[in-house]
Amino acid sequence: MSSERISGKTVAQHNSRESCWIIVHGKVYDVTEFLDEHPGGSKIILKYAGKDATQEYDPIHPPDAITTNLPPEKHLGEVEPDTVEKVVVEITDEEKARQERMANRPSLEEVLNLHDFENISKQVMPEKAWAYYSSAADDEITNRENHAAFHRIWFRPRILRDVTRVDWTTSILGHRSSMPVYITATALGKLGHPDGEINLTRAAAKHGVIQMIPTLASCSFDEIVDAAQPGQVQFFQLYVNKDREITKKIVQHAEARGVKGLFITVDAPQLGRREKDMRMKFEAEDPSVVSASGSDGVDRSQGAARAISSFIDTALQWDDLKWFKSITKMPLILKGVQCWEDALEAYDSGLVAGLVLSNHGGRQLDFARSGIEVLVEVVAHLKEKRGLTFPNEKFQLFVDGGVRRATDVLKAVALGATAVGIGRPFLYAFSAYGSEGVERAIQLLNAEFEMNMRLLGARTLKEVVPEMVDASNLSTHIVAVPGDNLYNNNYESMIYAKLKESKAKL
Amino acid sequence: MSSERISGKTVAQHNSRESCWIIVHGKVYDVTEFLDEHPGGSKIILKYAGKDATQEYDPIHPPDAITTNLPPEKHLGEVEPDTVEKVVVEITDEEKARQERMANRPSLEEVLNLHDFENISKQVMPEKAWAYYSSAADDEITNRENHAAFHRIWFRPRILRDVTRVDWTTSILGHRSSMPVYITATALGKLGHPDGEINLTRAAAKHGVIQMIPTLASCSFDEIVDAAQPGQVQFFQLYVNKDREITKKIVQHAEARGVKGLFITVDAPQLGRREKDMRMKFEAEDPSVVSASGSDGVDRSQGAARAISSFIDTALQWDDLKWFKSITKMPLILKGVQCWEDALEAYDSGLVAGLVLSNHGGRQLDFARSGIEVLVEVVAHLKEKRGLTFPNEKFQLFVDGGVRRATDVLKAVALGATAVGIGRPFLYAFSAYGSEGVERAIQLLNAEFEMNMRLLGARTLKEVVPEMVDASNLSTHIVAVPGDNLYNNNYESMIYAKLKESKAKL
Amino acid sequence: MSSERISGKTVAQHNSRESCWIIVHGKVYDVTEFLDEHPGGSKIILKYAGKDATQEYDPIHPPDAITTNLPPEKHLGEVEPDTVEKVVVEITDEEKARQERMANRPSLEEVLNLHDFENISKQVMPEKAWAYYSSAADDEITNRENHAAFHRIWFRPRILRDVTRVDWTTSILGHRSSMPVYITATALGKLGHPDGEINLTRAAAKHGVIQMIPTLASCSFDEIVDAAQPGQVQFFQLYVNKDREITKKIVQHAEARGVKGLFITVDAPQLGRREKDMRMKFEAEDPSVVSASGSDGVDRSQGAARAISSFIDTALQWDDLKWFKSITKMPLILKGVQCWEDALEAYDSGLVAGLVLSNHGGRQLDFARSGIEVLVEVVAHLKEKRGLTFPNEKFQLFVDGGVRRATDVLKAVALGATAVGIGRPFLYAFSAYGSEGVERAIQLLNAEFEMNMRLLGARTLKEVVPEMVDASNLSTHIVAVPGDNLYNNNYESMIYAKLKESKAKL
Amino acid sequence: MSSERISGKTVAQHNSRESCWIIVHGKVYDVTEFLDEHPGGSKIILKYAGKDATQEYDPIHPPDAITTNLPPEKHLGEVEPDTVEKVVVEITDEEKARQERMANRPSLEEVLNLHDFENISKQVMPEKAWAYYSSAADDEITNRENHAAFHRIWFRPRILRDVTRVDWTTSILGHRSSMPVYITATALGKLGHPDGEINLTRAAAKHGVIQMIPTLASCSFDEIVDAAQPGQVQFFQLYVNKDREITKKIVQHAEARGVKGLFITVDAPQLGRREKDMRMKFEAEDPSVVSASGSDGVDRSQGAARAISSFIDTALQWDDLKWFKSITKMPLILKGVQCWEDALEAYDSGLVAGLVLSNHGGRQLDFARSGIEVLVEVVAHLKEKRGLTFPNEKFQLFVDGGVRRATDVLKAVALGATAVGIGRPFLYAFSAYGSEGVERAIQLLNAEFEMNMRLLGARTLKEVVPEMVDASNLSTHIVAVPGDNLYNNNYESMIYAKLKESKAKL
Repeated sequence: MSSERISGKTVAQHNSRESCWIIVHGKVYDVTEFLDEHPGGSKIILKYAGKDATQEYDPIHPPDAITTNLPPEKHLGEVEPDTVEKVVVEITDEEKARQERMANRPSLEEVLNLHDFENISKQVMPEKAWAYYSSAADDEITNRENHAAFHRIWFRPRILRDVTRVDWTTSILGHRSSMPVYITATALGKLGHPDGEINLTRAAAKHGVIQMIPTLASCSFDEIVDAAQPGQVQFFQLYVNKDREITKKIVQHAEARGVKGLFITVDAPQLGRREKDMRMKFEAEDPSVVSASGSDGVDRSQGAARAISSFIDTALQWDDLKWFKSITKMPLILKGVQCWEDALEAYDSGLVAGLVLSNHGGRQLDFARSGIEVLVEVVAHLKEKRGLTFPNEKFQLFVDGGVRRATDVLKAVALGATAVGIGRPFLYAFSAYGSEGVERAIQLLNAEFEMNMRLLGARTLKEVVPEMVDASNLSTHIVAVPGDNLYNNNYESMIYAKLKESKAKL
Repeated sequence: MSSERISGKTVAQHNSRESCWIIVHGKVYDVTEFLDEHPGGSKIILKYAGKDATQEYDPIHPPDAITTNLPPEKHLGEVEPDTVEKVVVEITDEEKARQERMANRPSLEEVLNLHDFENISKQVMPEKAWAYYSSAADDEITNRENHAAFHRIWFRPRILRDVTRVDWTTSILGHRSSMPVYITATALGKLGHPDGEINLTRAAAKHGVIQMIPTLASCSFDEIVDAAQPGQVQFFQLYVNKDREITKKIVQHAEARGVKGLFITVDAPQLGRREKDMRMKFEAEDPSVVSASGSDGVDRSQGAARAISSFIDTALQWDDLKWFKSITKMPLILKGVQCWEDALEAYDSGLVAGLVLSNHGGRQLDFARSGIEVLVEVVAHLKEKRGLTFPNEKFQLFVDGGVRRATDVLKAVALGATAVGIGRPFLYAFSAYGSEGVERAIQLLNAEFEMNMRLLGARTLKEVVPEMVDASNLSTHIVAVPGDNLYNNNYESMIYAKLKESKAKL
Repeated sequence: MSSERISGKTVAQHNSRESCWIIVHGKVYDVTEFLDEHPGGSKIILKYAGKDATQEYDPIHPPDAITTNLPPEKHLGEVEPDTVEKVVVEITDEEKARQERMANRPSLEEVLNLHDFENISKQVMPEKAWAYYSSAADDEITNRENHAAFHRIWFRPRILRDVTRVDWTTSILGHRSSMPVYITATALGKLGHPDGEINLTRAAAKHGVIQMIPTLASCSFDEIVDAAQPGQVQFFQLYVNKDREITKKIVQHAEARGVKGLFITVDAPQLGRREKDMRMKFEAEDPSVVSASGSDGVDRSQGAARAISSFIDTALQWDDLKWFKSITKMPLILKGVQCWEDALEAYDSGLVAGLVLSNHGGRQLDFARSGIEVLVEVVAHLKEKRGLTFPNEKFQLFVDGGVRRATDVLKAVALGATAVGIGRPFLYAFSAYGSEGVERAIQLLNAEFEMNMRLLGARTLKEVVPEMVDASNLSTHIVAVPGDNLYNNNYESMIYAKLKESKAKL
Repeated sequence: MSSERISGKTVAQHNSRESCWIIVHGKVYDVTEFLDEHPGGSKIILKYAGKDATQEYDPIHPPDAITTNLPPEKHLGEVEPDTVEKVVVEITDEEKARQERMANRPSLEEVLNLHDFENISKQVMPEKAWAYYSSAADDEITNRENHAAFHRIWFRPRILRDVTRVDWTTSILGHRSSMPVYITATALGKLGHPDGEINLTRAAAKHGVIQMIPTLASCSFDEIVDAAQPGQVQFFQLYVNKDREITKKIVQHAEARGVKGLFITVDAPQLGRREKDMRMKFEAEDPSVVSASGSDGVDRSQGAARAISSFIDTALQWDDLKWFKSITKMPLILKGVQCWEDALEAYDSGLVAGLVLSNHGGRQLDFARSGIEVLVEVVAHLKEKRGLTFPNEKFQLFVDGGVRRATDVLKAVALGATAVGIGRPFLYAFSAYGSEGVERAIQLLNAEFEMNMRLLGARTLKEVVPEMVDASNLSTHIVAVPGDNLYNNNYESMIYAKLKESKAKL
């Protein structure tokens, strides 16, 4: 980086596609060549071409995002402070309406379940954030199947047991958790709330829940660890970098900072195409870019997606696990296992402490099966082939995807899971209410756990046994015969007895 | 209770959250500390702070509700009659509209089935009552599954039998019933109609149907028993109180008053979270309370629900059945059994005369299976393990939940049930039409029974045998693969040949 | 009947509920006591109290309906012709609109399938007729299942066969039929069209299709037989009268007139409750009657339904078949068999020539299974127990209910049916277009048969074999788990790329 | 053909139904007798009666359509050029609106998947084209089932494999293909775009995809072959003509022009009734024709459909394959096989190189099963009976119908298909965007293939093995029990916590 001081006037001259400089935190960057790579589209950058973009930049990016993504020669130096014109952020009508909705959020007491958070945050968060968080792969079939799968599992509760005291605390990788739930890793938390992932850290601390820190957090790793309370347990989710030295540095830094488990993502050698999110990008793009790129045949929407994930190692293999074992003492967990064959291989390797049966929230391969469905298959085959029983202290199985109710969690526990990861619901909770939202979400789950444990007749999670569920239809993937519209539309539905007035009116 | 007489003026001074007195039936109560516990919300009480609340109180509460729920020191004494100002009950526009709809109910002749009652009462009962009656646990999946399950059972009727006379009378716990149906216990009948549960008693008397009296009736137990005709059979549903002396008193009083069967609820150690009902509460709450409680983190909506059910013994166990046997000669029936294992344990105990296979109308544990599904499993296992056949005089099986048609009842009978409990439909019938509504409901069922017995080729219930139904899909719990919206929305539905005019218009 | 001549003036004085006379075809009847029994409601009769009702009477009733239903003492005699005032039939706005729609029917060429007829006739026939024809039992589940069941059967067609000539003629009870379809019996044809069932007779004659004459036809039996061409084959559907002498007379008269098969209805000892039709009645009723009957507790809607079917013998039994055999040489067919046990009993009796596997178009017992489902069970069990194969010349199986396409028919044939009965679609065809509509319907079926036989690779019906269909899901009666509305409504459907304009607009 | 020159004035006199001449490419034709046979309806011809129709004719017909379809004596000769009045084509408002929508198409970059093309082309193509392309047989059940079937197959992906390089190229009948996809034959390409099938040829050339040329192309066979690049591989789809000399000429010409595979259609001895398309015809017909034909009972809509397909040999049989073998060295593939029995017969004949398991896009026999379902059955039986494994170089299996995503293709490959045919999506792509649309479609598929291969853990198509899919529900054809509308409509859906404002408003 140059150490030269640059005048605001000079910066102001580089205000076009051809030459585009911006100021962030008092430093000047040449982003001309980065315009088309910007995950958020070029339009938003061009709006600040030649200007101070800090105010727009901060809520969305980790502090080091720009220094990491731009080559050093594009770091032009510091700006002379008083020479920069203040940028007045214009607020669009849409944004005003959104802020008004934000001001009118229901009180937290009125939020009765995790669905409420999703609904409220859909209304109060920026469209872009909603598109990013809610989108999934292809036709988003797997995304919704994740939730639907739980509805094919039904309870067989027991009666006449003393359920005065019910206890749903558990131990995850040897660490106490107030419930069989952990906060799983989700990316770009500042899209939804300025405090980003730290909202989760704070709420997790208060309620004894374990948080998994994501590689792609908006807050920096250290910010998130710094926000933790003494003794608070955190895990780390890792996208493995092609450059193993970088990976090693990240992993050992995590261990040094006290992280208690390393969750290696194995279902995302390339990040998924999420069309709802891509669709949103076109709205945000400078139209001239779109038409330009249209004519040269280069698909920049692909390029952008690839840019974010280009560091991920597509060559990651079973053999690499030994290397991980050699660089860290943290337990290794594979996140994204989707069939019993891989579960068995992982177990037989003797290198991993557990698996997350997951399809990445439906964001990677559409028509991947739900984690809960895979759980049943893994438990059955590992019992048959290795005599294992689950939940298993030495080889723990986790499930994530589609969880909205404590009943969902208890179904997973009954079928052998140690705990369940919840992602989007907590994301929605803090997007609408900050860390208090996450706290409320945890409280609601606690209330549901207490009720449901009693109604199941289970005093502890040990008593939540396989016989308590009927999962025999779990693998039944039905699409009904397409409707006979002519027949069905001819059918005239029956009607109720009508009130006299309405009868008169009709 | 103080015996002192209090002036209306004094009462009138206690008209705020800080000090709130009300008058009910000429007595003064200090309800300040009860405000936040009130199941109906604090707002409605504060409206009568310092005033006579009798007119508002009466239609909803059992006469002894206030004396039971308030500690004696809050019973301040009698008011001086002439010193109290008359309360003019203001009628809201919504209430006026509701009363108008009530005046425009269809004639009872136009009510052709039990669905009609539900539809009409939804329109004519107070919103609060509808929310309380219709709500169920979590996402109300089990609530609706209860009805859906019957639709997975199909008939195999027989022909060419002399069905001139068909007889669907039966015997329940040794008592004659005009149909294989009893009126099951449902709470708070006065929410729907000023006469509450007595509507049921009257109609039951006329038509030879057995009524089960609920613990949480709006009318007092004795009022309901007093309303019965000589020889009329009544059962009693019991929530077991932690204080066994109270339980004993209640049970022995019931027996002394002639109750013929004790149905002990075993599926509700804690009353369920019913969000539709909780949602309604926020409308009824004083907003200042909500925000206040929001800030101190106390969840009063939980508190209220807990208040009602706090007396229920969460420690009730199998061993307690012997104690019940020791304090009463009434036959004991467990209400809320949900798997064959518990059914077997109940049978083997030798202490119970029958079971109600029920999930509490879907109001307790969501994803509990329907009673009718559990019936098939219980019948199969008790046959296999103990050689029992059903219907069985000595160990009777009942089912409740989701019944709307005589066909539903006959399916249960074919599969081994002695009789079926119907709750909400009767509740809706009297909410809209008083006891005449209940009578009409019974008549409609009778008309359906006559028709369906003939069409099945069954002269008596004994001839309604398992071979008459195909229940092979009963346990199939399917959720279809989530829809491919892009594909489906592209599909253009076929159209019919159009009338010439409409063709011109389009 | 009195032979006295009555003056129009005298008749005109009996113009009220208390005394109600009407004139039909120049004869005077006292219908005072019949008012409440009238299937069409009392209101419509009272409109003609004291007047000439012929014009209204004719299109709906068989000529002898009034003489059959009124006791002789109510037949008061002939009216003096010139003393009667002409009745001017007022046409309501609804009726005018309906007639306009009738005038605007699409041309017959535009009618491309049987669904079209249903849709058009729904728009152009009187509401009352639509309600009567389309209604079915209880919640009309079986009614719709009849059609749905065919959609669970899929084809396995064969290729590379010479299908230049395809032949779908067949033989039904030894009589040639141009297709494996007959026109099954449906009641009250004049509700839809003034020529009633004769529309069917005429079209059947032209196209070599067999018509089954219903007991409850609007045209008299002889009118229908008279309308037939020489050599035209007709069957007769019989509701057995309690008075066996009447039954005998009817049966022997049918045989004498040349009827070739007697289809004895065995699924209707009592006619079903059809609420859509009952609902319509209340619209047609004199409101004063409704309230009057409401107060005395008598359910006239029941009474009316019962009145029509009161002659049917509820005691009809297997033994009676011998008696039928003794009074007629016509082959006997049982119409309404619904399980293999009864099919076997019928076969073993040696008295019957065939069975119609039917649930009466869904109008009797709701949750009765479809005929096509019963067919598979009957074929399997009669093969296993008696070594029969189907189609079988000596013991023919028919199916009716839900047929709309030639593919439906071919599925039934592949599974063992000799032919299939079609009812409502022909009724709708003539209601909208008279006999030409029925002809068009038959032509459409022929066009579909030709196409489908070729595409199946079947030159004759003999080549339509069981291996050509996959019916393995036929008995799967699924009701999906009730929807998770909170989850589903949160899901935001994906969208397409938008046209630029519409993008601008949104 | 006469060689006489005709004056424009003479032509202009033949401007009515009675005598209708038109000019196309400077030649005069008497089309009077052809009016009612015209697949596009008579109305459009009559508009040009006595005039030059070239401008209207060109975009829809292959150049030789008129000479082929009219008998030589109707070719009247050449017109004197200067005597013809220019026809001013009037543009309707609908057409103007359509052209405006065309101008407003989204940019190709915004098109993110094949669904988008269908949606856009539905909006921008002429209604007639949409009706023809999108329509299918009867109730279009099979048409939609083709897509739905893929949704009953789920993935079992593998992890921790080096997927840096993934390769989805393959070999089809010995020819390299850049993906396991070919462009299958679809008729009348000029309905959607003036360049018709040549759009496909051009895009196929650029991207190494194989095109199957249809018999019923809008462009002539030679035009399509001429448009190919040197070395570009093309197949030919053949409807076998009754006149074997014509067939021979066509086949040998195709071989001579370098076509690499002959796909003989075996599922269409007669072309299907497609009602959506027929319905559209009535809009296009001269109303006087409709009423005329209505009265004489001739069904011209049938006649037109039959006219197109009348040349197809309905007598084509297995034995004919030897004859084909004798006239060409091109590999023979049967297109339209629908059960394992025929697949076995084809294999045992030793004459065919492969099969397309297809139901003609749902356009022939409704309730034919999807190709993907048939694939599983064929693979299983050919393995069991002949020990074959698939994909099989010597006997290749193809599937078409319902494909929209690379995941669909990979499912077929996993189950044994060599490649998959895609038809309508490419048709929609060029209808909206010409050959660039097709290119974009191929690029999108490539992007999906790359992503999905990585996520499946498959480096080459050989690694896409049967164990990677769960197809156990593929043959489950479910139609749910018809809904209980009265019950369901009574159910009141749960609601979310409301924003304060909206609460106030409601």
